[in-house]
Amino acid sequence: MNELSLIKKITSLIPDASYIGDDTAYLKESEMVVTTDTLVEDVHFRLKTTTPHNLGYKAMAVNLSDIASDGAIPAYAFVSLSLPKNIDESFVEEFYKGMNELCSKFGIIIAGGDVTGAEKIFVNITLIGKTNGFKPARRSCAKAGDVVIVTGILGSSRAGLEILENEEKFCKVEKNVLEKFKNAHLRPFPYIDLGRKIVEQSKRTPAMMDTSDGLGDALFKISQSSNVAIEVMADKIPTDKDLGEIGEGKALEWALFGGEDYTLAACVEEDFGHKLAKETPEIQIIGKVIGKKANGLVKIISDKTIYEITEEMIINKAFRHFL
Amino acid sequence: MNELSLIKKITSLIPDASYIGDDTAYLKESEMVVTTDTLVEDVHFRLKTTTPHNLGYKAMAVNLSDIASDGAIPAYAFVSLSLPKNIDESFVEEFYKGMNELCSKFGIIIAGGDVTGAEKIFVNITLIGKTNGFKPARRSCAKAGDVVIVTGILGSSRAGLEILENEEKFCKVEKNVLEKFKNAHLRPFPYIDLGRKIVEQSKRTPAMMDTSDGLGDALFKISQSSNVAIEVMADKIPTDKDLGEIGEGKALEWALFGGEDYTLAACVEEDFGHKLAKETPEIQIIGKVIGKKANGLVKIISDKTIYEITEEMIINKAFRHFL
Repeated sequence: MNELSLIKKITSLIPDASYIGDDTAYLKESEMVVTTDTLVEDVHFRLKTTTPHNLGYKAMAVNLSDIASDGAIPAYAFVSLSLPKNIDESFVEEFYKGMNELCSKFGIIIAGGDVTGAEKIFVNITLIGKTNGFKPARRSCAKAGDVVIVTGILGSSRAGLEILENEEKFCKVEKNVLEKFKNAHLRPFPYIDLGRKIVEQSKRTPAMMDTSDGLGDALFKISQSSNVAIEVMADKIPTDKDLGEIGEGKALEWALFGGEDYTLAACVEEDFGHKLAKETPEIQIIGKVIGKKANGLVKIISDKTIYEITEEMIINKAFRHFL
Repeated sequence: MNELSLIKKITSLIPDASYIGDDTAYLKESEMVVTTDTLVEDVHFRLKTTTPHNLGYKAMAVNLSDIASDGAIPAYAFVSLSLPKNIDESFVEEFYKGMNELCSKFGIIIAGGDVTGAEKIFVNITLIGKTNGFKPARRSCAKAGDVVIVTGILGSSRAGLEILENEEKFCKVEKNVLEKFKNAHLRPFPYIDLGRKIVEQSKRTPAMMDTSDGLGDALFKISQSSNVAIEVMADKIPTDKDLGEIGEGKALEWALFGGEDYTLAACVEEDFGHKLAKETPEIQIIGKVIGKKANGLVKIISDKTIYEITEEMIINKAFRHFL
């Protein structure tokens, strides 16, 4: 079973699945949102390519990004660690320093957790955020007439992964360029403040997701949940000017399917979107919501062709069909 | 590093550790308690000795027991699964049926989770409970003059583990006796209703813990956190009448250090303890809180000797010193 069909199966096994299907669960009466994410050694990270400090940082960042995608305020973290016997004290110290970097920045309290043995390192963080009077952004809130915005550049994390896995291939690239992309992968920035701003200042609840599984995945899920069609102009998707040096001809594919950028993608009212883009340098308008569509439809329009995003592309992290 | 020193190290690395140190974190302003627990294949369970259904049941039960030890009401569960590629659909189905058994019994909503790949099965559950107007029981609330109570029998889970690991050794024991102990290990009962009753009816907030790491560990931690000394009468600790058939001469050791019984141990006002014991068949008075003691002291008094529980005994799950 792939992850997508496994999640569908699991959802069918939960008697009341009304809390499932967004980046977080919204506990309305408590004005809270909750998210949980796991990082597994040799599945999500390798100790050869990350430091314990950056691992702690990233484990917290990926959960923060889910809270950011609601426009909520992170508050309490619960950290479960499974560690091999031979792990030393300095690993634990550095790992917590990495988490603390983000905890102190965003006022998060580590309020609990669990420690067990294991053959590989497992990190699970559950993060609770507060909505403080605002309804959190949901995938299902996009409306025809909205514009599609993103809060940062895309594809850089995938480029960083490429470098980390095959550094020798890039010996001719400038060192600071390599570092920039590696950092994008190892130390993603959670857009807590921008997520909050978008939800607080929007006239109605926006649709928002993070691009942890790629921009294509985020827009496809918003389009499905909201029953709308989305059109994106390929040349409006912001990418790093040096991206082509790492993945020649891959920029659009990495931006759409690379994943782990943790940029936010949102659908907001047209005038509000333009206001945001004008006053916030990081925010770009990349497309629009064009109308009803029962099973989701995302078109990526470039000057050469029009791609229609499919689940298959999202699973394979690559283009397959084109129209 | 052993688990105890690892937890001490981690606590020292958390800037505000005021939420750490009980079975749950108490989020006062939200009237919530939160707990998290991980089960790792070949560390906490083996697929040879448990079914996917019972694994789901137990993963939920161990978290429920932490909520029970607060006297709180379980509400929302977040389930993170890491699964090897070769796992089939029926595993996931049975696992969720096992969890659903307890979710429907206690009105719990599975509100989120995460699925990842891994070489071994990992189950992490974060459970949120509601305190509904009552301050949750804390380890630090025991007072001189209290009686010590437990809500069920002890040592049976350890006996069940012994049978599951060496079934051939017990070919002469009756089948229903073997099943009883195996069930105690595989399908522990979370004392949600009794935990709630103890907190609701007590004149003041009681000290309470579950005996997930053994009665000795629970009483030692209560004694340390509350700065009190505790005396337990060995012959008052309730055990199954057939326990001796599985572990000859081991009954007291298994009751104190075996762990995974998920019975509650509490220190409550003397008159309230007697009232509870009178009206509730499961509840037994096993000892008393006798006075101040800065670093914790638990004496187990039998007709032959007096044991003083040490951290070493808890780590080794066995007696070592005696007075």
